[in-house]
Amino acid sequence: RSAEMAKLTQLIDNEVFRAYATYSAIVLLKMMLMSLITAYFRITRKAFVNPEDTASFGKGESAKKYLRTDGDVERVRRGHLNDLENIVPFLGIGLLYALSGPDLSTALLHFRIFAGARIVHTFAYLIPLPQPSRGLSWAVGYAVTISMAYKVLKTALYL
Amino acid sequence: RSAEMAKLTQLIDNEVFRAYATYSAIVLLKMMLMSLITAYFRITRKAFVNPEDTASFGKGESAKKYLRTDGDVERVRRGHLNDLENIVPFLGIGLLYALSGPDLSTALLHFRIFAGARIVHTFAYLIPLPQPSRGLSWAVGYAVTISMAYKVLKTALYL
Amino acid sequence: RSAEMAKLTQLIDNEVFRAYATYSAIVLLKMMLMSLITAYFRITRKAFVNPEDTASFGKGESAKKYLRTDGDVERVRRGHLNDLENIVPFLGIGLLYALSGPDLSTALLHFRIFAGARIVHTFAYLIPLPQPSRGLSWAVGYAVTISMAYKVLKTALYL
Repeated sequence: RSAEMAKLTQLIDNEVFRAYATYSAIVLLKMMLMSLITAYFRITRKAFVNPEDTASFGKGESAKKYLRTDGDVERVRRGHLNDLENIVPFLGIGLLYALSGPDLSTALLHFRIFAGARIVHTFAYLIPLPQPSRGLSWAVGYAVTISMAYKVLKTALYL
Repeated sequence: RSAEMAKLTQLIDNEVFRAYATYSAIVLLKMMLMSLITAYFRITRKAFVNPEDTASFGKGESAKKYLRTDGDVERVRRGHLNDLENIVPFLGIGLLYALSGPDLSTALLHFRIFAGARIVHTFAYLIPLPQPSRGLSWAVGYAVTISMAYKVLKTALYL
Repeated sequence: RSAEMAKLTQLIDNEVFRAYATYSAIVLLKMMLMSLITAYFRITRKAFVNPEDTASFGKGESAKKYLRTDGDVERVRRGHLNDLENIVPFLGIGLLYALSGPDLSTALLHFRIFAGARIVHTFAYLIPLPQPSRGLSWAVGYAVTISMAYKVLKTALYL
């Protein structure tokens, strides 16, 4: 069993794979932060969607008025969904890319630009910054993922 | 080729990786169940969103009245989206965690608590149970994922 | 380090894993295409959700009228979310399935049917085709994922 463990550890010892692990963890933690920001705005704006969440505000009509949508809450939720739509492809394609034997420097370039673009995208969405800030940061992350997918398909194509 | 296969099989023979595979499959199957529950409520509550889905109820106005939102359908959909938001980080970070060489008992503890928390979360959302049931079960799964991310970054950090 | 690289490359040289990489990349690229289609409809239908996205149409009331929902935009967004709900389980369970040592021909059958079903699902949703086209294509992809999950749990079960 220690021989197996050694083999597994080799994977996490590979520098490209370690870089993938690091940047994947970073973008996933950033995405998870969106849940906390949503909860923060729901509580401070008193804007909930489930009746059981407003029970502490009293019963009946007094609590019902907090079952409403709020612009800030909806904005964070759109940013969260956009993260899901873009970080899921990064995780899947990035893993295959890391296993496809890229140069370490090329791989780092891809991972760093993607993570940076998604962090900029979050600020652009939440502040919000004027366009095309959000659009451009989205497009940069998208292009990085396409570039990794191209390398994966070139290396591994088996239809 | 059989030598390669042997190496792949070693990964799935590793106990930590097998535990990851088992609990990942369980939480993904649980998440997939949300689609069936949504379909069940859409059909029994006659609440659809696409016009082509109501064609069997007749044409024109008689079918149009089934294009509506329903509280139960929306509740299941929120639970499904919450699963996506939380199970995607578990899958990505959990895979890296399983490859980072944790103790088997520690890994099992993480995987079991996460899976249990998400199952409780689903019941808390769908029944619904009074708060803080849903909030606490969400927070437990969140904390487990953060704990795994910490181990991944401590083991693999390569910026 | 070159020995480690060799081992990583063995994974991507395995035919089942290459097939998984190929079909994963295909369905993820297809899912990413939904973002572009959403953007296309938002621009051509002039239907936006963020005020900063309509700034180029002028200030005040003249721009505000483009903050609206549009049937075609919402349809693409539903297709995109359905992709997320179904492709995330495929990625996670499919990876574990590819590592569980299936026959190459059986694995190819699973991957090809899943990818085909999701492509048909997208056309059925966007055109839209009359039901049960969309429902059936969804169910086929769902069944393929369940079949792979069964193999994973049979091979790896460790509770």
